[in-house]
Amino acid sequence: MHIQKAVQVIQQDLISWRRDFHKHAEVGFLEMRTASIVASYLEKLGYVVKVGEEVMKKDACMGLPSEETLKTHREWALKNGADKQWIDKMNEGLTGVVGIVETGRPGPVIAYRVDMDALNIQEDLTANHRPFNEGFASVNKHMMHACGHDGHTAIGLGLSTLLMDNKELLCGTIKLIFQPAEEGTRGAKSMVEKGIVDDVDFFIATHIGLGIPLGEIVTGQNGFLATTKINASFKGKAAHAGSSPEIGKNALMAAATAVLGLHSIPRHSKGNSRVNVGFLQGGSGRNIIPSQATMQIETRGETTEINDYMYKKATSIVRGAAEMYDTNVIVDVVGSAPSGSTSPVLVELLTNVAEKSPYVQKVSNDNDDSIGSEDATYFMNHVQSHGGLATYTVIGTKLSAGHHNEKFDFDEEVLSTAVDVLFRSALKLVNLEIM
Amino acid sequence: MHIQKAVQVIQQDLISWRRDFHKHAEVGFLEMRTASIVASYLEKLGYVVKVGEEVMKKDACMGLPSEETLKTHREWALKNGADKQWIDKMNEGLTGVVGIVETGRPGPVIAYRVDMDALNIQEDLTANHRPFNEGFASVNKHMMHACGHDGHTAIGLGLSTLLMDNKELLCGTIKLIFQPAEEGTRGAKSMVEKGIVDDVDFFIATHIGLGIPLGEIVTGQNGFLATTKINASFKGKAAHAGSSPEIGKNALMAAATAVLGLHSIPRHSKGNSRVNVGFLQGGSGRNIIPSQATMQIETRGETTEINDYMYKKATSIVRGAAEMYDTNVIVDVVGSAPSGSTSPVLVELLTNVAEKSPYVQKVSNDNDDSIGSEDATYFMNHVQSHGGLATYTVIGTKLSAGHHNEKFDFDEEVLSTAVDVLFRSALKLVNLEIM
Amino acid sequence: MHIQKAVQVIQQDLISWRRDFHKHAEVGFLEMRTASIVASYLEKLGYVVKVGEEVMKKDACMGLPSEETLKTHREWALKNGADKQWIDKMNEGLTGVVGIVETGRPGPVIAYRVDMDALNIQEDLTANHRPFNEGFASVNKHMMHACGHDGHTAIGLGLSTLLMDNKELLCGTIKLIFQPAEEGTRGAKSMVEKGIVDDVDFFIATHIGLGIPLGEIVTGQNGFLATTKINASFKGKAAHAGSSPEIGKNALMAAATAVLGLHSIPRHSKGNSRVNVGFLQGGSGRNIIPSQATMQIETRGETTEINDYMYKKATSIVRGAAEMYDTNVIVDVVGSAPSGSTSPVLVELLTNVAEKSPYVQKVSNDNDDSIGSEDATYFMNHVQSHGGLATYTVIGTKLSAGHHNEKFDFDEEVLSTAVDVLFRSALKLVNLEIM
Amino acid sequence: MHIQKAVQVIQQDLISWRRDFHKHAEVGFLEMRTASIVASYLEKLGYVVKVGEEVMKKDACMGLPSEETLKTHREWALKNGADKQWIDKMNEGLTGVVGIVETGRPGPVIAYRVDMDALNIQEDLTANHRPFNEGFASVNKHMMHACGHDGHTAIGLGLSTLLMDNKELLCGTIKLIFQPAEEGTRGAKSMVEKGIVDDVDFFIATHIGLGIPLGEIVTGQNGFLATTKINASFKGKAAHAGSSPEIGKNALMAAATAVLGLHSIPRHSKGNSRVNVGFLQGGSGRNIIPSQATMQIETRGETTEINDYMYKKATSIVRGAAEMYDTNVIVDVVGSAPSGSTSPVLVELLTNVAEKSPYVQKVSNDNDDSIGSEDATYFMNHVQSHGGLATYTVIGTKLSAGHHNEKFDFDEEVLSTAVDVLFRSALKLVNLEIM
Repeated sequence: MHIQKAVQVIQQDLISWRRDFHKHAEVGFLEMRTASIVASYLEKLGYVVKVGEEVMKKDACMGLPSEETLKTHREWALKNGADKQWIDKMNEGLTGVVGIVETGRPGPVIAYRVDMDALNIQEDLTANHRPFNEGFASVNKHMMHACGHDGHTAIGLGLSTLLMDNKELLCGTIKLIFQPAEEGTRGAKSMVEKGIVDDVDFFIATHIGLGIPLGEIVTGQNGFLATTKINASFKGKAAHAGSSPEIGKNALMAAATAVLGLHSIPRHSKGNSRVNVGFLQGGSGRNIIPSQATMQIETRGETTEINDYMYKKATSIVRGAAEMYDTNVIVDVVGSAPSGSTSPVLVELLTNVAEKSPYVQKVSNDNDDSIGSEDATYFMNHVQSHGGLATYTVIGTKLSAGHHNEKFDFDEEVLSTAVDVLFRSALKLVNLEIM
Repeated sequence: MHIQKAVQVIQQDLISWRRDFHKHAEVGFLEMRTASIVASYLEKLGYVVKVGEEVMKKDACMGLPSEETLKTHREWALKNGADKQWIDKMNEGLTGVVGIVETGRPGPVIAYRVDMDALNIQEDLTANHRPFNEGFASVNKHMMHACGHDGHTAIGLGLSTLLMDNKELLCGTIKLIFQPAEEGTRGAKSMVEKGIVDDVDFFIATHIGLGIPLGEIVTGQNGFLATTKINASFKGKAAHAGSSPEIGKNALMAAATAVLGLHSIPRHSKGNSRVNVGFLQGGSGRNIIPSQATMQIETRGETTEINDYMYKKATSIVRGAAEMYDTNVIVDVVGSAPSGSTSPVLVELLTNVAEKSPYVQKVSNDNDDSIGSEDATYFMNHVQSHGGLATYTVIGTKLSAGHHNEKFDFDEEVLSTAVDVLFRSALKLVNLEIM
Repeated sequence: MHIQKAVQVIQQDLISWRRDFHKHAEVGFLEMRTASIVASYLEKLGYVVKVGEEVMKKDACMGLPSEETLKTHREWALKNGADKQWIDKMNEGLTGVVGIVETGRPGPVIAYRVDMDALNIQEDLTANHRPFNEGFASVNKHMMHACGHDGHTAIGLGLSTLLMDNKELLCGTIKLIFQPAEEGTRGAKSMVEKGIVDDVDFFIATHIGLGIPLGEIVTGQNGFLATTKINASFKGKAAHAGSSPEIGKNALMAAATAVLGLHSIPRHSKGNSRVNVGFLQGGSGRNIIPSQATMQIETRGETTEINDYMYKKATSIVRGAAEMYDTNVIVDVVGSAPSGSTSPVLVELLTNVAEKSPYVQKVSNDNDDSIGSEDATYFMNHVQSHGGLATYTVIGTKLSAGHHNEKFDFDEEVLSTAVDVLFRSALKLVNLEIM
Repeated sequence: MHIQKAVQVIQQDLISWRRDFHKHAEVGFLEMRTASIVASYLEKLGYVVKVGEEVMKKDACMGLPSEETLKTHREWALKNGADKQWIDKMNEGLTGVVGIVETGRPGPVIAYRVDMDALNIQEDLTANHRPFNEGFASVNKHMMHACGHDGHTAIGLGLSTLLMDNKELLCGTIKLIFQPAEEGTRGAKSMVEKGIVDDVDFFIATHIGLGIPLGEIVTGQNGFLATTKINASFKGKAAHAGSSPEIGKNALMAAATAVLGLHSIPRHSKGNSRVNVGFLQGGSGRNIIPSQATMQIETRGETTEINDYMYKKATSIVRGAAEMYDTNVIVDVVGSAPSGSTSPVLVELLTNVAEKSPYVQKVSNDNDDSIGSEDATYFMNHVQSHGGLATYTVIGTKLSAGHHNEKFDFDEEVLSTAVDVLFRSALKLVNLEIM
């Protein structure tokens, strides 16, 4: 079987898609234009396409944007090439898309997951940044694909093309999962709880870059820290600081006390833990006792248990600090991910497959270096919990700057590499193989 | 009427009494020897004498010593000249004494209040401290009459002598109140709540020294701050700081957080306020997560309302801090006093009387300089609440060192001055006068 | 002498001026349009007019806006009716104006001071707010005359009109001082240090409202707290909170520690003190160790000495907190005012004068209720330091909402009242009087 | 060669020594009686014995007791069986002892290290605690051998006996090192810096218990955390909290601020770290602004570098906190130990030897479970730095309660096990072996 050509055929499409998504960067739960284009394309290919509440449980979405933000962005998307038919099905930020092809032949359920969201970063708009030079820098202020998810979405579209082209060779069922809001670990949980991987036997999530050079692949990335993202909002009572300080209830004092307390949560003897208050804003004017303060917190743990410990302690600290100053506090979980680990059998299989790709020079089974947190772990844990196999693969590429940097860009050859390796994995999982 | 001589007759007694009490200094609620000697003497003079539960409401005593401390000191007192008959009636630290004389003739109820307790200070035992030199330094370690209450008790005995000597001249009822545990404002409340000044028309409390020179008198001392004395005891859970820090519940973190919070209670726009954490001890060893911490707090306010505000805020802060670190806290009120003010009419009367005393060169009606807190205010407020008049008088004397200093001593001529002025006030209040 | 009519003649002008200034509200050091209109009008009347560096010492200005802000606002002002000739002389935010008339006849130097700046408040734009209803709500977003300084400027123009009209009756010298940036107590110091009241014999500052009803006047407002306004900006080092927390230098921890420390500066036994951290912002994202934090602080004291104590303590706390977390901090004083008190002789004179005004029903010599801080005290102290007399007068009026509230408005009759009383004071000070 | 008997011969001596040391428990740098008995016995056996300044560099001792404590304990020791001749050489707490035997035959320098100090724990004095029941509970209040160092000293004496008995079989040099003050990691550094292991080729430190059962041995214990023990003493200025709070400089506020800051030192991404404030005491009385506060801190790190990071951060925090409140702070290092690791070759050799001991059923080469910190690492690192081999061996035994518990006791058979294994190791290291 010789289908290598197929990847070459879509090489230009991959780059076009990626640049289109890059130019129209949309942050988590606002990927309306992106998701509607994905849905529309998959439908055209012949996939059964499900979106919105069909693939996401709204209650399990974390950190959804405000209604106003959703409405404003919807208008922007419609004016900028979105497909209204699909958008109408993605109300309230439920921008997930799943394309399904059932071959009708007995076989495993195989799922590939990519993500689609950009970051709240202002892209560099100077001459030495290629996306700006070549005209595909983000048109949205303070939204930028600085982590490569534009590439991930393109890879998903490329992979869906090859799989449908070769549908007759396959058996079982293929699911292509386009997840919203991976940044801040906010979107995966709602797709898992909706049940979209309940029947999945093999699950592969993909990320490009992450310090791996072009031509190299890690087939079993590990070391994901469990995490919880928390917003705390303190509400007190304003008062004039000169004339009636005793009337005030100082929300900033509560918040500052919480900051000190949060950073002092004891280390856990069973593994790594982390806590950070990355943002705090409180008060309205120099001479007013602050009546409000908000903060952004995150906890992490080497295991889900350790993160749970951190989260529980954090909650006590925030609530106690609020009580100290007679203020109220609202604690919202706006993101979370468990820890997770890859299935060795699937990793091994993927390694064998990858070694045969002409795009790949080097394959590593394993990488334990912590790369932070990823909510793909929700999918992985769930698939493994019913006996399936799951892994997380990193496709190396050359970066112009680190992830989350305003000058981030990547060598687009990685798009072909990824599609080739993932396509080969599907064939292998149904006992075929490309020569 | 010429009764000036009377004071001269008891001059030596005043000094002997004072020095005996000074030598046998007893701190709050342990004034067993002192009180039993007072009771015994008053009885001999012919007073109706009430002690213990007859004059104190136990529930309203604050900061009572432990049973063990009471027992140990009782034994000391019995070996050192206490009168067992009376001590047996002063169980559980109820060491208050009231001597009453009812003349049988219609007239006002007049009350004089003195206090009897020493301080937890180690008296100076070197040659340049007169009490040591002349053999009447305290025999009790870390207990010392460093505020003059030994003198107050002597004044009370002297005054009781003169009044009984002249009983036939008097009308109405006289009450001599010997209060325990004024230091830390712990004892007055229990006597007031027992009702011993329910029927009092004129109330005069007395203090010597306080920066006023010998021969001078302030007949209406004001500026007492309301106060609450609080002990907070945090209880967490110990753990080895190296091997299992996550198991601990850090009582010292809670306490340290409370310290910062307490000192930051907002100022009150309606008047002076104060807060202090004067003592903190926490933890048991360098490598153990502290499972306990205790602190001594006091709040003050220019008015009772302001102090209530401080106390309420303090309580919230302590409780919230405990909750932050998942610890428990016990908050005990171990002392309190309201604010208070003198009755101008009684002040004026006392001024007129004092000006006639041969011991007095200068009389001031008023002094607003804050001298801290005093639980005589409980008596004063209660007397005034049913229409009586009350005042707080300061009898000046020369001090060898400031109040609460280990070298404190005073010129004993003040004892005669005080007795003379107070005796004159009794006569005046029943419309007599000494020439 | 009957010149009452004069005030009536300019009544409509007063209202027009006030509404024009209200509509074109400009905050401290940006009063370019306002000041240029004032300067232009005074010049037309015949005053010697000095502005910019002629009347302000730049080094003594506190909290000047950035160059960019100045430039942007200058453009706005020029498009909205400012007088370019005058604006060119008010570079860098030096928007103070002084109009001087020298009569050529021997006599005292009399100075009146009004202020011109608005607040950073978004004015209410709903139907029940008169300025909105009648079309003179502020056209500048987040800038609003919510304290009445629009009225003060109008009063200054009205007073200047009457004085010039009656120049021939007067003797000595009159100075009309239009001060910028009273809010935040930022502008007075620079005018005083420039020397504009070095020769002043009588100084009168004016404020409307402040809880005094229409028809009432306080001729000697006291109780101004000394104050210092401080900005603290902490700079640390960012780091990824998950992968390399040890590299970070946490500016937010430093700031939070400073917040707790600042609020715990001990009370001062000699008088009232205040401290507030009214605003804090720190950090850039949830998963980044915060590399920066800024806060707005103010201290106050019943006396300049007490405020100096607060300020000194605050500085130590901020610097120590920065050191704790190995961060740098820049502490800027962006405003200050000393305490101050009125001259009884001038107050008395003003009371006599005010009682004769047909606009005035009630006059109080004195008001000690603290109304916060005011940098008119710089002028007052300086005038008094060389033997002059100074006072601060409050002209009552009806308010629609409290000062600094988004619905603030006032009964414009106060404009006539103020002009009438101040004009009468000038006559009186040169020994004339209106019948 | 059959010398197994030898151990049996001294079995009773081992128990007697251990119980004698247990009964006369002496804490770090006060092991005068213990050390003098050790020195005296070694001398009798024929060792060259060095003590005091011959084996310890005074400047490198950490946390030495006060002169008064040393003097008082010296008197106690002399009255309780100490050898005055030796004590006179151990001035100022330099209680280390080294016994040296030079065989005169070429061969390696082999060193064995035991420690001698007890803990500041009050031993259980109730019937179910064997040392109490059998009459060898500590006679020193608040001093107890609760970690087994009494056993270690006995093992050292036993080993020295066997080695001297078999001196003719040996070659090279043997050093028996009796180290003071291991608790708090205070004593090793001074012996290392004095040079006593400069020439050592093989170094073996020994501990009993630590969770290993009787009959089991760990020949290469690892996982020691580097640590620094720090005392911080804040000095401020007292003031009456009611009458003059502004005069005070609050040492307790500084200390409480430091507590919060210390616990919030960021985790280190390269390995485990720890910090604890295990003790804090501040203030002298409820109504006094605290003028002093002292705290006991410890930092730990998986590597010496990580601990250095923790220590450096801790120092900044303590100093910054002191500066915040205008107080002074003295920071003393009162203990420290680096991290360390065992030499695999020596571990392997020891394992081979131990497997032949009739007392041993199970041998583990390695144990990475952190057992906290140990200053034996100073010796180990130094020996390894010049090419020698070092290890730390744990001899299992049954415990009645955990280490540092007031009911700690152990099965004394461990003494024979330890002596047998260590004796065998010496033979092996000179190429002999017991059958």
